[in-house]
Amino acid sequence: MSKYDTYFLMSSKDVAGYVQERLSFFPEKEDLECKEIGDGNLNYVFRLVSKKTGKSVIVKQAGESLRIDKTMHLPTDRGKIESSILKLQRKFSPGLVPEVFLYDPIMCALIMEDMIGHTMMRTGLINHEIYPQFAQDISTFLVNSLLFTSDVLMDHKEKKNHVKEFINPDLCEITEDLVYTEPYNDQNNRNDIYEPNLEFVKEQLYEDKKLHLEVAKLKFEFMNDAQSLLHGDLHTGSIFINKKHTFVFDPEFAFYGPMGYDIGNVIANLFFAWCNGDATIEDKNKKKEFCNWILDTIVKTVDLFNEKFKKAFIENVKDTMAKTDGFMEYYLQKSLQGTAGCAGLESIRRIAGMAKVKDITSIKDEKKRIRAERILITLGKDYIMNRESFLDGNSYKKAIEKAIAKFS
Amino acid sequence: MSKYDTYFLMSSKDVAGYVQERLSFFPEKEDLECKEIGDGNLNYVFRLVSKKTGKSVIVKQAGESLRIDKTMHLPTDRGKIESSILKLQRKFSPGLVPEVFLYDPIMCALIMEDMIGHTMMRTGLINHEIYPQFAQDISTFLVNSLLFTSDVLMDHKEKKNHVKEFINPDLCEITEDLVYTEPYNDQNNRNDIYEPNLEFVKEQLYEDKKLHLEVAKLKFEFMNDAQSLLHGDLHTGSIFINKKHTFVFDPEFAFYGPMGYDIGNVIANLFFAWCNGDATIEDKNKKKEFCNWILDTIVKTVDLFNEKFKKAFIENVKDTMAKTDGFMEYYLQKSLQGTAGCAGLESIRRIAGMAKVKDITSIKDEKKRIRAERILITLGKDYIMNRESFLDGNSYKKAIEKAIAKFS
Repeated sequence: MSKYDTYFLMSSKDVAGYVQERLSFFPEKEDLECKEIGDGNLNYVFRLVSKKTGKSVIVKQAGESLRIDKTMHLPTDRGKIESSILKLQRKFSPGLVPEVFLYDPIMCALIMEDMIGHTMMRTGLINHEIYPQFAQDISTFLVNSLLFTSDVLMDHKEKKNHVKEFINPDLCEITEDLVYTEPYNDQNNRNDIYEPNLEFVKEQLYEDKKLHLEVAKLKFEFMNDAQSLLHGDLHTGSIFINKKHTFVFDPEFAFYGPMGYDIGNVIANLFFAWCNGDATIEDKNKKKEFCNWILDTIVKTVDLFNEKFKKAFIENVKDTMAKTDGFMEYYLQKSLQGTAGCAGLESIRRIAGMAKVKDITSIKDEKKRIRAERILITLGKDYIMNRESFLDGNSYKKAIEKAIAKFS
Repeated sequence: MSKYDTYFLMSSKDVAGYVQERLSFFPEKEDLECKEIGDGNLNYVFRLVSKKTGKSVIVKQAGESLRIDKTMHLPTDRGKIESSILKLQRKFSPGLVPEVFLYDPIMCALIMEDMIGHTMMRTGLINHEIYPQFAQDISTFLVNSLLFTSDVLMDHKEKKNHVKEFINPDLCEITEDLVYTEPYNDQNNRNDIYEPNLEFVKEQLYEDKKLHLEVAKLKFEFMNDAQSLLHGDLHTGSIFINKKHTFVFDPEFAFYGPMGYDIGNVIANLFFAWCNGDATIEDKNKKKEFCNWILDTIVKTVDLFNEKFKKAFIENVKDTMAKTDGFMEYYLQKSLQGTAGCAGLESIRRIAGMAKVKDITSIKDEKKRIRAERILITLGKDYIMNRESFLDGNSYKKAIEKAIAKFS
């Protein structure tokens, strides 16, 4: 009998004993130190380090409710899906996804590779770090994880078995509510809006019926279009990074959905960092350097995605009908339209919904925060309403410059 | 021990003993008579009747391979899905779906309500019977089974559990191959084309690259768009009918797909009967009466579908965003476009693919059969290429008249 035979929510003092019991990773009597390092909404994340060798692992335990709202309950076995997904994504994008050592269905915990020397990307970006390798790495991850799990390349029966395995009703419900519904009306009491922008949000989001129609269309695409195995929550808090390398993890929202959802999330979250840099960097040159790097990275991410997508499609396409002239262009274009739509939804919901991002909430100057939020809402609407015209990096750059100019 | 403890393919002499062992439907020593009545490709269907009372049941047993191609193997447990689907469809369309008494996983058989006094609709139509109630009944069935299982009305989590339960890789593969791929090229050796139309098929189907592109788009919709719980094989062989009433059954191809697939199949199969009537009815008045009834029924089916769809949508819509002004119209229009596309695919594949329909193969006059097949291919292409313009019954009527005129 051990205390780890029944599920309980661990604190950092429980983790060393837990890992030593479950895994032969550290020597038996190693002196281990544990810290809680999570900042997500759903899980408790611990790093366990050997004081002697510096060797370390990560333990991620699922809680029974949202950390920011204890009334929202979730199934604790979601780590099982996460562990299968990480293995699958690691197969398609070797080197860009951490290794899972163990999934434990009793404690509802994953024990996995510690991404040593990597920082959570959102933290790095708020410190205005530049990551020159990011556009290359993330575009590879996106093409590999999305195109290779679609019917273009994957055997159709194998794909359907994946669709079945990774159906994720509870976590999809969170996205359907928080991203695709609540920011557009005040019928719930969970929206958390920065007071000085309350009127702006009402006018721009609650009263715009044309916007609601486009959001409704995107919501039904999200719920129905089983195109690719999505990460499902690909913001900069799900990425660990340094100057030379990127890790994508935390795919517990994964399910088969429209690929634009992942790509759009990356684009939107990059731009949150631009807003933070623009509002908080004092040094003019440093601000210019950081903000330009962000803009360039958005442009490069979209353009490299396009380029690598076409290359992978042409080299690997399996479905007979997908080989038809013009199909690749149609399929890519449709995915890019969904990308712009989802970039817009993410830009808006982090301002007008329940779950915020630090990039924005940490802007202390009221005027600057008001401006950042208005740029994001305006830009988000442009992405959604004109999504058919966002087909390359440059179209994003232009839209961003237009939105910035409006609030200068 | 009984001989029914292990799976074997029954012949009609085995069925009485089988039903008496499994079900207390008939009295113990009843004198029972059994006939094989199936004409499908996948199953063996028996009717078991009491000689004394006339009371009867249907036994449907799954074979291990396609009846028309013994090399194509199928899982024999597909009756389990069928039984769940029949129960679900009966809930949404009471009276229009037969009752299932038992699903037996050992013999892979369903024992179900005998649709007494009903004829297989294809057989009735080839005898040029008129069914005045059909457009009313089938439009009700279509709206209830399709709209009520979609995210517009169904709880999103319940719907996702249905998507998971009804994933159907093997039978979907048959459709993807036979409907969406093989009729458009000669890369397989399964296409069975009426010799005098071989050149016409090559020119009209194999060489039309623009057509291939549209078929490819529709194929990816079929594989990815988990909109509604489809019947999946809604031709006139899956319908039992009389002048006053309609039964829909045989949903073993069921899965979550785009609703246009079912509606389009009904429309295309009605028109096969028009082709048969036009080619084989000698009496001018009778021909006019039958063919006009078919045309009217196509028009009414589409228009009643539209009408009942809107009524059910407005009265029952649950999703907040789906209530947005304009969404119902968008959603209906998209479904109708898919409908025309699928009507086109079905029209074509029954001429240029592997699986034929008796309505056409029973036309003995060579010239008339050539004409019927060319009308169908021409019309099918029009449906596919111009699917965005088929939004009401009248647009179908016009397209049909145009195709007929071309070969007069």
